[in-house]
Amino acid sequence: MKSIFIAGISGSIGQQALEVLKKEWFKDNFKIVGGSVYKSWDKLKEAINKYSLKSVGIVESNENISKTFNGCRVFTGVDAVERSMEFCNPDYSLIATSGFSGVQNTLKAIDVSQRVCLANKESIVCGGNYVLDYAAKLKREIIPIDSEHSAIFQLLMGETSTPEKIILTASGGSLRDYPVEALENVSVDEVLNHPVWSMGKRITVDSASMVNKSLELFEAYYLFKIKNIDVAINRNSRIHSMVQFSDGVIKMHYGLADMKIPIAFSISYPERNFVFDKPDFFSENIHFEKVDFDRYPSLKLAYSILGDAPLQNAFNAADEIAVDSFLKGSIKFADIYRTIYKTVNEIQKQFLFSKSLKFHNIDDILKVDKISRNIAKKYIMEVIE
Amino acid sequence: MKSIFIAGISGSIGQQALEVLKKEWFKDNFKIVGGSVYKSWDKLKEAINKYSLKSVGIVESNENISKTFNGCRVFTGVDAVERSMEFCNPDYSLIATSGFSGVQNTLKAIDVSQRVCLANKESIVCGGNYVLDYAAKLKREIIPIDSEHSAIFQLLMGETSTPEKIILTASGGSLRDYPVEALENVSVDEVLNHPVWSMGKRITVDSASMVNKSLELFEAYYLFKIKNIDVAINRNSRIHSMVQFSDGVIKMHYGLADMKIPIAFSISYPERNFVFDKPDFFSENIHFEKVDFDRYPSLKLAYSILGDAPLQNAFNAADEIAVDSFLKGSIKFADIYRTIYKTVNEIQKQFLFSKSLKFHNIDDILKVDKISRNIAKKYIMEVIE
Repeated sequence: MKSIFIAGISGSIGQQALEVLKKEWFKDNFKIVGGSVYKSWDKLKEAINKYSLKSVGIVESNENISKTFNGCRVFTGVDAVERSMEFCNPDYSLIATSGFSGVQNTLKAIDVSQRVCLANKESIVCGGNYVLDYAAKLKREIIPIDSEHSAIFQLLMGETSTPEKIILTASGGSLRDYPVEALENVSVDEVLNHPVWSMGKRITVDSASMVNKSLELFEAYYLFKIKNIDVAINRNSRIHSMVQFSDGVIKMHYGLADMKIPIAFSISYPERNFVFDKPDFFSENIHFEKVDFDRYPSLKLAYSILGDAPLQNAFNAADEIAVDSFLKGSIKFADIYRTIYKTVNEIQKQFLFSKSLKFHNIDDILKVDKISRNIAKKYIMEVIE
Repeated sequence: MKSIFIAGISGSIGQQALEVLKKEWFKDNFKIVGGSVYKSWDKLKEAINKYSLKSVGIVESNENISKTFNGCRVFTGVDAVERSMEFCNPDYSLIATSGFSGVQNTLKAIDVSQRVCLANKESIVCGGNYVLDYAAKLKREIIPIDSEHSAIFQLLMGETSTPEKIILTASGGSLRDYPVEALENVSVDEVLNHPVWSMGKRITVDSASMVNKSLELFEAYYLFKIKNIDVAINRNSRIHSMVQFSDGVIKMHYGLADMKIPIAFSISYPERNFVFDKPDFFSENIHFEKVDFDRYPSLKLAYSILGDAPLQNAFNAADEIAVDSFLKGSIKFADIYRTIYKTVNEIQKQFLFSKSLKFHNIDDILKVDKISRNIAKKYIMEVIE
């Protein structure tokens, strides 16, 4: 029986992880020992009672929360996730927190766990090489949960040759059929109407702009140590990604668009112990389309900074700020790209002297993130005025 | 540098194997030490001179061939392939002979080689468990070359869980769009006009009748030790097969329809050192169709005898005889199925007492094959009269 900690237990991935852990084999092989939330104390209390958790973390709390609740050690504050994780000392940590703060969750998970089931893409996007190097140093397993990266990870199992190319698939997002000229002024509701996946708000906006695919591009680069990465649109998201080898063989990963599948795989790997619905491959054609970079300028920018960790970090930070402003109605959809572009350019100028494409410590990562956010905020203020 | 022997060096697979072995990496890592032909002495002489072969075998020869030719030891007669293979004692043997005689080639290859690159499907179809058990006992590697089985083999690399299902893909053959009623009387030329693959005559006829897919079904059953095998039609043969796991994940093997790819893979496995053209997955949709068993009655029969080695053996023997008669114009296309059906039924009656689904020695395999051929010939004589 292995112990598992779920950071971000109240979110979409966290909740689906709990569903997976209820199933045959999982329930007999894993004990949920802890979890964390950003601010949903009610959901955390529910989990404490249901799973008799050993320790939990809550980052932001309005109530006065005591140090123990029904025998569970409760940590609060900015480092609550890391402290509860350390207290639990779990065999596996599943990092389902979202955004940049996941970097520190993941670093702590690497410290304390043998395996990190990683749904937080910023850990690799923003941490660049640093997070993966750290995991390699401590001989930890990092199993990606992002559907594309899980697919690639699965397709590369047993292959001893480096693939010649990775092809990330994309649905194209909610605006894929809008005229390019119309993208400037689309509404929040239009952007949030994703054709295939049901996800959080930021990721749905990022899917429409392909910022999400850009972050996945960065992630794939570090995870699979390959720069030749293409993006192909597969409208119904049945193909989750592909790998192409020198002999022309392409392996495709086909299945339903359900995050429980990669979540379960990250836990049961190398085995597959999850039993789930089967897709009907007779019913729909598989079709791929090329990406139109005029429609998705962020992705074009992403290719130009691939492998430059500080710029990727800036890219992500600016997007977090800009999407937040877009969702609040402060800026237009097209301003998201403009904010990212401005911020990346500014960071490139400021850090020109360093010329380092790699991060060597967490402080540098935090520093670039902070400066980038300030640049993005300042630019957005100008746009609003 | 490893030594390799090619049984069936003058055939389509043998010739393509030579092409592969000329390429980068292959030419530096392999030395062709021997080969065999059925009766093309001219082609064999050519190979002896070109590759300075150590030993060769020729089964049927009209000329009086001496025991050595340009320093190469030449064996003739029914056991010429095995004797030359034994003389060469190669690290790898590639068995590209066709038909039932391949069984004994493969058994000898298992004796003398560490790896058998296996293109002769009858070895497993007719040998049933016996050939694979023998290879397992001697700890030899059997790497399939048949495009579907190579695909499945590649898709299962690194997987520790048994797949829930294997899906063999089929082009549907040259008659896939003929009205079912028209199949009775199609001409030899119509049957030999295959839409995708360029192959030998028997396999092209077997593709039209799906006898080939039936043999592949038997082969997959023994190779991958799974009974849940489906067949799906993929008209352009871009998907070479699929495996489906309990979690609903389907891995698909996509690529050009060129036998050099699986040939190269069988030699370089687990690495991929062959550099070949890349398919363009943007240009064509991927589409699957269900199999109409009224169109392909042989496949329906095949499912009913799956796992019963003597009956599978009879199925193959009857087809070899019937296709030969069809190609000579002696019987109609639909008589091929009738011959198989009659023969399988007769063998089932004759061997009812044994109730053994497995073969325990080579003599039993040879015996069932011989009796089956006689039954098939007798039936064909009746049809002709």
